Amino acid sequence: MHVPPGPPIISLTTDFGLSDTYVGVMKAVILGIAPSARLIDLTHAIAPQNIVEATVRLEAAAHYFPPRTIHLVVVDPGVGGERAACVVETEMGAFVAPDNGVLTLPLRGCGSVRAIRLGPGAEPFYRRPVSATFHGRDVFAPIAAHLALGLDPATLGSACARESLVTIELPEPQEFSYAPGEPGLRVPLLYTDRFGNMVTALTRPVLDAWLARHGWGSGAVFVHAGARRWRGISRTFADVPTGEPVAYWGSSERLEIAIRDGDASRALHTTDVRIVAPSEREE
Amino acid sequence: MHVPPGPPIISLTTDFGLSDTYVGVMKAVILGIAPSARLIDLTHAIAPQNIVEATVRLEAAAHYFPPRTIHLVVVDPGVGGERAACVVETEMGAFVAPDNGVLTLPLRGCGSVRAIRLGPGAEPFYRRPVSATFHGRDVFAPIAAHLALGLDPATLGSACARESLVTIELPEPQEFSYAPGEPGLRVPLLYTDRFGNMVTALTRPVLDAWLARHGWGSGAVFVHAGARRWRGISRTFADVPTGEPVAYWGSSERLEIAIRDGDASRALHTTDVRIVAPSEREE
Amino acid sequence: MHVPPGPPIISLTTDFGLSDTYVGVMKAVILGIAPSARLIDLTHAIAPQNIVEATVRLEAAAHYFPPRTIHLVVVDPGVGGERAACVVETEMGAFVAPDNGVLTLPLRGCGSVRAIRLGPGAEPFYRRPVSATFHGRDVFAPIAAHLALGLDPATLGSACARESLVTIELPEPQEFSYAPGEPGLRVPLLYTDRFGNMVTALTRPVLDAWLARHGWGSGAVFVHAGARRWRGISRTFADVPTGEPVAYWGSSERLEIAIRDGDASRALHTTDVRIVAPSEREE
Repeated sequence: MHVPPGPPIISLTTDFGLSDTYVGVMKAVILGIAPSARLIDLTHAIAPQNIVEATVRLEAAAHYFPPRTIHLVVVDPGVGGERAACVVETEMGAFVAPDNGVLTLPLRGCGSVRAIRLGPGAEPFYRRPVSATFHGRDVFAPIAAHLALGLDPATLGSACARESLVTIELPEPQEFSYAPGEPGLRVPLLYTDRFGNMVTALTRPVLDAWLARHGWGSGAVFVHAGARRWRGISRTFADVPTGEPVAYWGSSERLEIAIRDGDASRALHTTDVRIVAPSEREE
Repeated sequence: MHVPPGPPIISLTTDFGLSDTYVGVMKAVILGIAPSARLIDLTHAIAPQNIVEATVRLEAAAHYFPPRTIHLVVVDPGVGGERAACVVETEMGAFVAPDNGVLTLPLRGCGSVRAIRLGPGAEPFYRRPVSATFHGRDVFAPIAAHLALGLDPATLGSACARESLVTIELPEPQEFSYAPGEPGLRVPLLYTDRFGNMVTALTRPVLDAWLARHGWGSGAVFVHAGARRWRGISRTFADVPTGEPVAYWGSSERLEIAIRDGDASRALHTTDVRIVAPSEREE
Repeated sequence: MHVPPGPPIISLTTDFGLSDTYVGVMKAVILGIAPSARLIDLTHAIAPQNIVEATVRLEAAAHYFPPRTIHLVVVDPGVGGERAACVVETEMGAFVAPDNGVLTLPLRGCGSVRAIRLGPGAEPFYRRPVSATFHGRDVFAPIAAHLALGLDPATLGSACARESLVTIELPEPQEFSYAPGEPGLRVPLLYTDRFGNMVTALTRPVLDAWLARHGWGSGAVFVHAGARRWRGISRTFADVPTGEPVAYWGSSERLEIAIRDGDASRALHTTDVRIVAPSEREE
């Protein structure tokens, strides 16, 4: 890895929240080592220890950063236990994270990657003493800072195959039988954002492939969410009147369910989201 | 616009909250274009799509920034619809925002301004593809970043009269008849801050003019808030005992109602705030 | 004080929250004076006017910052009243704060300090007019920014003995009689973090001294928290199964009580925490 032109960027993704001083302390450690680093909070509001939410958010966001960004990820339920830590260099920059599956989705979309599992070579860079409960401060922050200074990750441990990194399974859309001869697609929810918009597991390529398999054109689907049912995937909230539910491809690049000017999660009060292509009699 | 001495400052005001990655992604886009820009979060806690709150907060805060700041404002209920986007250069720096009235109050206090409505000249600077739901990332962030690099706003679209920009109406204090021959001033609430302090629409010049019109000196007023009633506008919380309500000119430069060491919004539980000048018999 | 090598770092600790624009405005004022300063939010989520929480958090966090950091602290219930303001230079950097006891704990651990109470010499640096309710913006932010530029604190007021600074009393662990001949240690709670972890007043040296006084080895203690009771202080959450309570030395360097993958504050619903060393019959 070469030192990037201009100050290096470190993104921070944690489940620490902003109520405590954990994030501030990590930044203090980073700037103590790499004073010129630019820090961008991606989010610190991952639900505590929710590796699924973290990996979905990283997948949706990491590729918007400049390519030499160092992505520091601390969602770490196994801190102090046996889990390993890793640095993974990709076309989207280097990820520094526990090896617990949190990188599953961002790595899935990458071409070649170079993965290093941290070993004895990393220890001289740790902050001492290493706390059993706060590796963000003592392990991940100093490693990210030294990478920002141009340290070669190869010196930190042993190279490993990407297949040897821990991965997690995410819920996937499942076909079901809506009515005799009428297949539907059951769409799991992944998380709800601050506006109450419900982020589902469905991506556009998956929907398009499903529709094509059944010979249906896109745009013809019905969306069911709990007791509500409407036709079509809209381009934006503004396509429906206030108070109406709407499905659209969100900035997460997944199907999201919202209520215009409202809170879909509260109003719809359901985890049951389905896509149904219309039969003749429903039109 | 000339490139300012020292790194350019970009302020960010949105209704995105900090639970999601939207703000982090906007910053990633900005630093990818303008690596030396300094970013200051003004607030991301505007109530979703609340243009009134946003314009009040901008009016109260924007003039504390260095004069060449670029103020990036994304409170944008009409995203993806027909609303225009604009850059408005003022003595307080340049605002980059949807043309939906969110700049109403900060512009009201400005002398000459130079307004540009974004047109085809802006499109080469957009991030592609432009999402229908996230112009903050694809339109406003890159435009702000290029302005930080010194881009002349005139290249982005056509100049327009400030009167042609969309404005919104805010609730204003209204005189009412408190008792025969005794006028009072009904003071609308604009929003409640985190401490439960209630921010009203009343500014000091408006109160002074009203008092002068009736021949009353300042300081002589009574404040009514729901069931509570007290005399005088205080200089600070510390002027009243714990648990007592207090009215004072807040950092928003509007009259605020607080409970010392308490939460006025919960304790007073009212939207009915009035100013009444004392008659002889009330003293 | 000399200008540090590299850009100066200013940490910010307030009870302003991030819902309002107060923090953004303070940063605007700082960067208007010291454009190259690096700003680190330590926390803005101190409970409103809670000087105890602020001083505990500062003690736990300030020493992780580079030694020339300027720590700007605005938890200021007496704003606008008679309280003084001070700059205190320490081995952990310079603190700029109201003289209301908020520096009690961080200063307790410092060797020599140099304390200045702000006087007329500071006034030329204040932002004018000075608001009665927002000294963070008009007094503390500009003073911190000028210190970042290299201003000698001695010019700001008169030196004062550290003993003359206001201090606050914190609850301390208290021995009690658990059973005839069996002493226990009652451990006050200081605050609860975002995960529901309960941060107590007990530090490891205090526990070790208490155990040694009674001839007990460490590790042998029982922890009682409300209705729950378990043996031992663990190294980390991961040492207990999901749903079990655990005591450990947290990143605050105080004993914390958690529920693995849960919220201890809600689940235990108690402020009664005790340490009891086991008698023979309990083993």
